Amino acid sequence: MTVSPFDHPFLSGLLGDEEVGSCFSVEADIAAMLAFETALAEAELEEGLIDSDAAAVIAAALDTFEPNMDGLRAGVARDGVVVPELVRQLRAAVGEPHASRVHFGATSQDVIDTSLAIRLKDAMGVIEARLASVVDELKRLEARDGAVETMAHTRMQAAIPVPASRKIASWREPLERHRERLAAVRDDVCVLHFGGAAGMLEKLGDAAPAVTRRLAEKLGLRALSRARHSERDGIVAFASWLSLVTGSLGKMGQDVALLAQSEVGEVKLSSGGGSSAMPHKVNPVDAETLVALARFNATLVAGMHHAMVHENERSGAAWTLEWLTLPQMVVATASALRKAEALAMSMAFRETGARG
Amino acid sequence: MTVSPFDHPFLSGLLGDEEVGSCFSVEADIAAMLAFETALAEAELEEGLIDSDAAAVIAAALDTFEPNMDGLRAGVARDGVVVPELVRQLRAAVGEPHASRVHFGATSQDVIDTSLAIRLKDAMGVIEARLASVVDELKRLEARDGAVETMAHTRMQAAIPVPASRKIASWREPLERHRERLAAVRDDVCVLHFGGAAGMLEKLGDAAPAVTRRLAEKLGLRALSRARHSERDGIVAFASWLSLVTGSLGKMGQDVALLAQSEVGEVKLSSGGGSSAMPHKVNPVDAETLVALARFNATLVAGMHHAMVHENERSGAAWTLEWLTLPQMVVATASALRKAEALAMSMAFRETGARG
Amino acid sequence: MTVSPFDHPFLSGLLGDEEVGSCFSVEADIAAMLAFETALAEAELEEGLIDSDAAAVIAAALDTFEPNMDGLRAGVARDGVVVPELVRQLRAAVGEPHASRVHFGATSQDVIDTSLAIRLKDAMGVIEARLASVVDELKRLEARDGAVETMAHTRMQAAIPVPASRKIASWREPLERHRERLAAVRDDVCVLHFGGAAGMLEKLGDAAPAVTRRLAEKLGLRALSRARHSERDGIVAFASWLSLVTGSLGKMGQDVALLAQSEVGEVKLSSGGGSSAMPHKVNPVDAETLVALARFNATLVAGMHHAMVHENERSGAAWTLEWLTLPQMVVATASALRKAEALAMSMAFRETGARG
Amino acid sequence: MTVSPFDHPFLSGLLGDEEVGSCFSVEADIAAMLAFETALAEAELEEGLIDSDAAAVIAAALDTFEPNMDGLRAGVARDGVVVPELVRQLRAAVGEPHASRVHFGATSQDVIDTSLAIRLKDAMGVIEARLASVVDELKRLEARDGAVETMAHTRMQAAIPVPASRKIASWREPLERHRERLAAVRDDVCVLHFGGAAGMLEKLGDAAPAVTRRLAEKLGLRALSRARHSERDGIVAFASWLSLVTGSLGKMGQDVALLAQSEVGEVKLSSGGGSSAMPHKVNPVDAETLVALARFNATLVAGMHHAMVHENERSGAAWTLEWLTLPQMVVATASALRKAEALAMSMAFRETGARG
Repeated sequence: MTVSPFDHPFLSGLLGDEEVGSCFSVEADIAAMLAFETALAEAELEEGLIDSDAAAVIAAALDTFEPNMDGLRAGVARDGVVVPELVRQLRAAVGEPHASRVHFGATSQDVIDTSLAIRLKDAMGVIEARLASVVDELKRLEARDGAVETMAHTRMQAAIPVPASRKIASWREPLERHRERLAAVRDDVCVLHFGGAAGMLEKLGDAAPAVTRRLAEKLGLRALSRARHSERDGIVAFASWLSLVTGSLGKMGQDVALLAQSEVGEVKLSSGGGSSAMPHKVNPVDAETLVALARFNATLVAGMHHAMVHENERSGAAWTLEWLTLPQMVVATASALRKAEALAMSMAFRETGARG
Repeated sequence: MTVSPFDHPFLSGLLGDEEVGSCFSVEADIAAMLAFETALAEAELEEGLIDSDAAAVIAAALDTFEPNMDGLRAGVARDGVVVPELVRQLRAAVGEPHASRVHFGATSQDVIDTSLAIRLKDAMGVIEARLASVVDELKRLEARDGAVETMAHTRMQAAIPVPASRKIASWREPLERHRERLAAVRDDVCVLHFGGAAGMLEKLGDAAPAVTRRLAEKLGLRALSRARHSERDGIVAFASWLSLVTGSLGKMGQDVALLAQSEVGEVKLSSGGGSSAMPHKVNPVDAETLVALARFNATLVAGMHHAMVHENERSGAAWTLEWLTLPQMVVATASALRKAEALAMSMAFRETGARG
Repeated sequence: MTVSPFDHPFLSGLLGDEEVGSCFSVEADIAAMLAFETALAEAELEEGLIDSDAAAVIAAALDTFEPNMDGLRAGVARDGVVVPELVRQLRAAVGEPHASRVHFGATSQDVIDTSLAIRLKDAMGVIEARLASVVDELKRLEARDGAVETMAHTRMQAAIPVPASRKIASWREPLERHRERLAAVRDDVCVLHFGGAAGMLEKLGDAAPAVTRRLAEKLGLRALSRARHSERDGIVAFASWLSLVTGSLGKMGQDVALLAQSEVGEVKLSSGGGSSAMPHKVNPVDAETLVALARFNATLVAGMHHAMVHENERSGAAWTLEWLTLPQMVVATASALRKAEALAMSMAFRETGARG
Repeated sequence: MTVSPFDHPFLSGLLGDEEVGSCFSVEADIAAMLAFETALAEAELEEGLIDSDAAAVIAAALDTFEPNMDGLRAGVARDGVVVPELVRQLRAAVGEPHASRVHFGATSQDVIDTSLAIRLKDAMGVIEARLASVVDELKRLEARDGAVETMAHTRMQAAIPVPASRKIASWREPLERHRERLAAVRDDVCVLHFGGAAGMLEKLGDAAPAVTRRLAEKLGLRALSRARHSERDGIVAFASWLSLVTGSLGKMGQDVALLAQSEVGEVKLSSGGGSSAMPHKVNPVDAETLVALARFNATLVAGMHHAMVHENERSGAAWTLEWLTLPQMVVATASALRKAEALAMSMAFRETGARG
């Protein structure tokens, strides 16, 4: 079953992104969840909450743990989250007398949200690097073609001539602003989520702050003074940022599709799609895909904002809505950046002389 | 890579649906596209547009055709649609001198939109049957528990007592209206899309209406008097209908989650999710999932409506946006119906005596 | 304060619609609410629930009633709905001993939803007539310009020539389908909402069905066998239909804006907007406005679908969300139809001879 | 006509906000546009682009200018923007020989986007102050009621007891983060838009940077090195921020509505709405309104993101979509903050002793 084009055997050729998509593979998720549980046991050992025998047995068991995927699947169907069944399997692997020390003091949301944070950190790294690549390609394009005289269009009508550099800068500069915006966004996403049943870490007693600090450090995340389980602003600010990026790229794609029209011809594409009925055509596929991905993220971003109405200490409904929405937004953004880079590399402005 | 929970090895346990999801598998898509090309050759033979040798060779070649998936994937990346590369592979399989008779007179959108129509017809059949099952379960529930006195709540406050039958009917009757609405919706979805390069079927000459009629009949779809490539109202009306269904189920889910609250207890769930931190809990997972799926479709339906702004004779951007959106809406609906049936079966109203 | 362009002193020139907008004036709302209360008293008299003295006093008082608007405003701020304060004012106007017979057996939602139904019936009438006008204008355009040879464009590239009639039909035929869809939609919108506190009409006893029937007849609405306070599918199906209409018009607008580009020139507009910096321009303002209104409704339709998750017997949150959303969608649709008619009247296809 | 509840004579009592709404009055818009034109003439005088006679006549004429509103309304209907007609009226008021010096070198978008920036600066000031007030009220509430033991709920089920301070902090802290986020957002909104016909300020020659600098200073806005007419990231980042704020407030509203349920009673509201059918009820109207406004903004934010696909140097379609969307989002946010403050002031946590 491949409901999403991002996962589809052939549609992923157009829309998917293996590198960032891999952050959402089941393997990456399980690895990150195991990293959490392993680091938690280490931190709890260091703070004297579990003894060294337990820690050693847990470390060994988790190191070689292989999940029973059918069990996980059935567990999610039953519990709405994978963690109760995963912990059950982990505890079975650890065995008595130390089983209960696995996941000690933690709750499902700690594991799932932290696993996501670990993987989003990776995804952000890729996305940031691609943003830089697109900016570089656009600088190169501007250096090469910036002096070409093109026609500015306002309200879909020719206005006055402007150099191509003006158009290219209007694609590049928003991306540079998005790079600046990313720092603040990242700061609220790459955090450790750790609060226990209702955010109080009540089972850890006075050791809670120290365990939190150690756990964050081991996982390469920022420690918070208090868990934010039900406060989704960090993740939704990130989703908004993703859609800002694809929105800017969609504007570039729309512009290129307009400039490359047969009747306009101000941009020439060295590669483009073919047609099954009209082999002579060169279709601006990358440009159109940028528009599609922009509108897809613009649509999905609403779902993330709705998910902020996260009732009580944990909302099964709002949280599940995030799972359905955010991974697609991340991959759509990564994919759009790759398309944009390819587009910038394959396009050339040309003088049309259409205006005396 | 499994970006969508619908495709995910364990999250699909909660959110996926194998039966309807299989309509969106690559196998189902390719089978339906081959059915189109096969039936097209037959219809064109019957109308004298291709000769019997060509038809026989095409039939044989398509019957045993195995696509080169890497090629298809690369083709979609290049062309934005799979059909040019698929037709190239098919023509290679058919060989000369009949290769050019494959896909004769058709265009990419004919194949892709018709393949979707064939598969949506199947999906609608499943969805319709599940709607009936949920209605039946709710009737059974009403027959058993309808006389239980419950509290009506307006604006989140207890209002006056009402029998449970009142609540159950408010869940069931919208579903019965959705069943009635489906007939009209189906009529504009289960159609043959066949127009050639720009909707004129210009290569078929006078035989175009007859080929259209025969092709539709062979594929079990309705023939149109004119292709509607750029008119997306049929598919968007269907998407709207899907979201109406999940919206009604989301209302039921929200109600059940509220009725099953620890402090309210008017509904008891015989099964529910467990917690990794609090083993005593019985979480209304199915009910919450219904809310999540309702809000997911309510979000995505906007994307489908945006896709109506489908410029010119074919929009790469708007069409791709549909691919990103519609399959998920269909599976979300199928999955929600299954959850709703399970929920209706696992719930019981009980007298709380909370009100004199 | 004029937050919405639909209400704005000068922006309404572009976006507003006085005729359909007037259905959402405070005067129309109050008139419809008074019609409800007046007809209710009559129906209750006829069914023996109130006596003729009461009915006469109520009829006289409501006939000349002038609301205290400051009071209503304060009442809505306090109660979330206008009805408690409106009924208080009405009862004060009626005076003792008959005051309590005003609004007897009804609840706020009965009054507000029925008032909306009364006014939407009017709005639908205007919208339906305009749909017919646009269809007629497009038929006239096709009769005059249909034979002009134009270029079909797929994926933003010139494809093959087609007659203008092909393009015009692709704008007209979806509108004809929307007209057919309206009948079913109207059937679930133009209904009487009457259920009392929690939908049971418990204060009316055995007379409830007869009062319902009489009340519906007096108000020109369809009587339901049971109130649907918390079932919002009728109104959301209508919202979806509105967005289907503007979506089809937005496609027409986008096409015209593309065809009228300076470099394309396949459509000439006899009127268009001017620019403050470039007086020579003729901007396709109506065409662009159609795109804007399509995307506005495509955005808002999501809000209506979210409002289906209407918890319990009455949701203050979901209901208020409808108030914020639906009136704008209705006016956007009415306005788009007017723009589309003007656009069809002001456009002409012309041979460009650009293709050998 | 009052299509929007924000503008409605009585619904604005619930949903409107006079203070921030006034930023979107026609008077405020015209005043800001006149401020732009006045400051432009001054700056151009100072840079030697217009002479002192012209500047004096323009200053005098604009100081006493009264727009012909019918003319503006007709102008917007024709041109899609108000500026061509406004400039025509201004030039008529200035008279010859200086008429052409009004609006010299500027374009419609300069005037309209700058007018919006001037007014958003005011609106942001109010919103920021209200954010501070809500934070203060929540601190006060925490100081008074923070020690009350309440029940944490996860997935709509009672979990473990937590102090009320935990819940209150989960409402307050996101608001403090939004305050921090505002600085960066404001920086890209409160900017001067000044580019002339196609962003090149070509009529001003070498004086363009100096005029820009002076104009920005006079208007209290930040000068950009280059106009960003078609780059909408600043305004869309602001819209996203608005929806983050209402999303956090919606979460608070949803929590309060749940805590104040008749069966839960952990929060008591000292004021609430009444019912027309059940006078005994105290409805959590402010809390529900917060949810409605959160979902409204969560819906509209998608429209702003779609508007980023702003084709060419100026898109009539995408720009108009912003006008339909952003003012409502600003007022919804302002209104939500006011409701949240009132809610924090009217609520009290109370021990229920429900958990032994």
